[in-house]
Amino acid sequence: MTDINLIAEYKSFDGKLGFYSHVSNLCKCEMRFSVYQPPQATQKPLPVLYFLSGLTCREDVFMIKAGAQYWAAKYGIIIVAPDTSPRLTGTPGENDEWDIGTGAGFYVDATAEPWKSHYQMYSYIVQELPTVINSNFPTQPDQQSIFGHSMGGHGALICAMRNPDIYKSVSAFAPIVTPMNCAWGKKAFSLYLGNNQETWRDYDACELVQKVGYHSSILIDQGTADEFLNHQLLPEEFINACAKVNQPLNFRYQPGYDHSYYFIATFVADHIRHHAIAFGLE
Amino acid sequence: MTDINLIAEYKSFDGKLGFYSHVSNLCKCEMRFSVYQPPQATQKPLPVLYFLSGLTCREDVFMIKAGAQYWAAKYGIIIVAPDTSPRLTGTPGENDEWDIGTGAGFYVDATAEPWKSHYQMYSYIVQELPTVINSNFPTQPDQQSIFGHSMGGHGALICAMRNPDIYKSVSAFAPIVTPMNCAWGKKAFSLYLGNNQETWRDYDACELVQKVGYHSSILIDQGTADEFLNHQLLPEEFINACAKVNQPLNFRYQPGYDHSYYFIATFVADHIRHHAIAFGLE
Repeated sequence: MTDINLIAEYKSFDGKLGFYSHVSNLCKCEMRFSVYQPPQATQKPLPVLYFLSGLTCREDVFMIKAGAQYWAAKYGIIIVAPDTSPRLTGTPGENDEWDIGTGAGFYVDATAEPWKSHYQMYSYIVQELPTVINSNFPTQPDQQSIFGHSMGGHGALICAMRNPDIYKSVSAFAPIVTPMNCAWGKKAFSLYLGNNQETWRDYDACELVQKVGYHSSILIDQGTADEFLNHQLLPEEFINACAKVNQPLNFRYQPGYDHSYYFIATFVADHIRHHAIAFGLE
Repeated sequence: MTDINLIAEYKSFDGKLGFYSHVSNLCKCEMRFSVYQPPQATQKPLPVLYFLSGLTCREDVFMIKAGAQYWAAKYGIIIVAPDTSPRLTGTPGENDEWDIGTGAGFYVDATAEPWKSHYQMYSYIVQELPTVINSNFPTQPDQQSIFGHSMGGHGALICAMRNPDIYKSVSAFAPIVTPMNCAWGKKAFSLYLGNNQETWRDYDACELVQKVGYHSSILIDQGTADEFLNHQLLPEEFINACAKVNQPLNFRYQPGYDHSYYFIATFVADHIRHHAIAFGLE
């Protein structure tokens, strides 16, 4: 099913920002996402850039706070921001803690009870959502890229590395790069995937980059005043992993920046430009 | 008293976004405001642009949603966004309705009971707040301008026209231009100012422009899909009033735009440029 329902629509930078819901076959619930169509979308199919948000976010936060529409309109790129998890699924405990369940899907396909019935965010992001987007919006299906923030930076990295043919480029703001080795990731993976840590490796960017790498340079910005830097994000692990396998990486420590959307807004132009170059738009 | 308390601070576009509180002598309560200092502020005093927000907003909304920091950093302008009213004053009824009291100060000096003890937003904006700002931030006190949205567009217009020597330029997004003749304004003015409508005229942009005019062209953007256009905003009244007295006015109907911050974000660059020109920065 690719029927979508328009929830709200706003004109923005001469384009159209829409908020939508649809029934997900994979997550077996209503899912929401937002789409910014720049003005060029009325003339021709355009590349699509997916943004994955961090813990507690919804499909609207990036569109409200990041200031990305100006740059999407400049380059002629459609931006899609999905929600961060299924919601209202009736899964026991889904609303009990902020870092598991609702708002915290971690972009994995859950294999453990009680999560596996609905929490299929990995396949939702790489398979179902693009099908929905490509059948409802003027996209170039062979021109897709992905980026994200924090938990969503993790999501972008694993989606891109596991699907290099689907995603032309990847970038991240303050990503969780090794969920196997930080508290957020260990908690989420043990609950979603069970205790066999072998199954965790396919969702860990530091593992993946050494196993499969990526076909083009990865752009990462990381604020040095980020309150999660040293115990959750662990960027040096990814820098070292990339170095081991000669993975091209443009890792930028940004002095004084924190984990907020003010940080994202400051560097979103550079990220969209990174993807615009991959799309051949600059 | 010009002591201010820092509530939170974020690096943004190589500058500094701060949220502050202080005790207002005029409003006799704690008031909050936000200040964006672009990177140039570490080198020299800069012009200051005040943004007045609309009904229900706080001091943070413009900084979160408008995407203004990019342009403020580009031109080298400090932006100050005050709260829209006193809060927690104990005034009877202050939290009972969304369009009066808290979040709805309407930028007037109240003269009627029970509001007059605290609701002195006009003098707060034009006198007390600039004193606080100029004594705590690296400003050029002779380089100030003002803009705003909706109720705050009304506020910007009346502050500028009544104080042409203080404000080099004025602009507005979807302003209330004749509060004497719309439901929001009639309700607020009758409660804050009493029923003698003669006292309302000094807070009505359509009246003021005919009485005193303004020394330079006024920039106004107004979305044609604005849900408040025809019964609250009444822009044609201001266009006609300006025409009567040959007041220079750059009034732009923006097709398809609504009343939201997506509209503001789309045109904020033009507004900041308008003020940058008045400051001699472009």
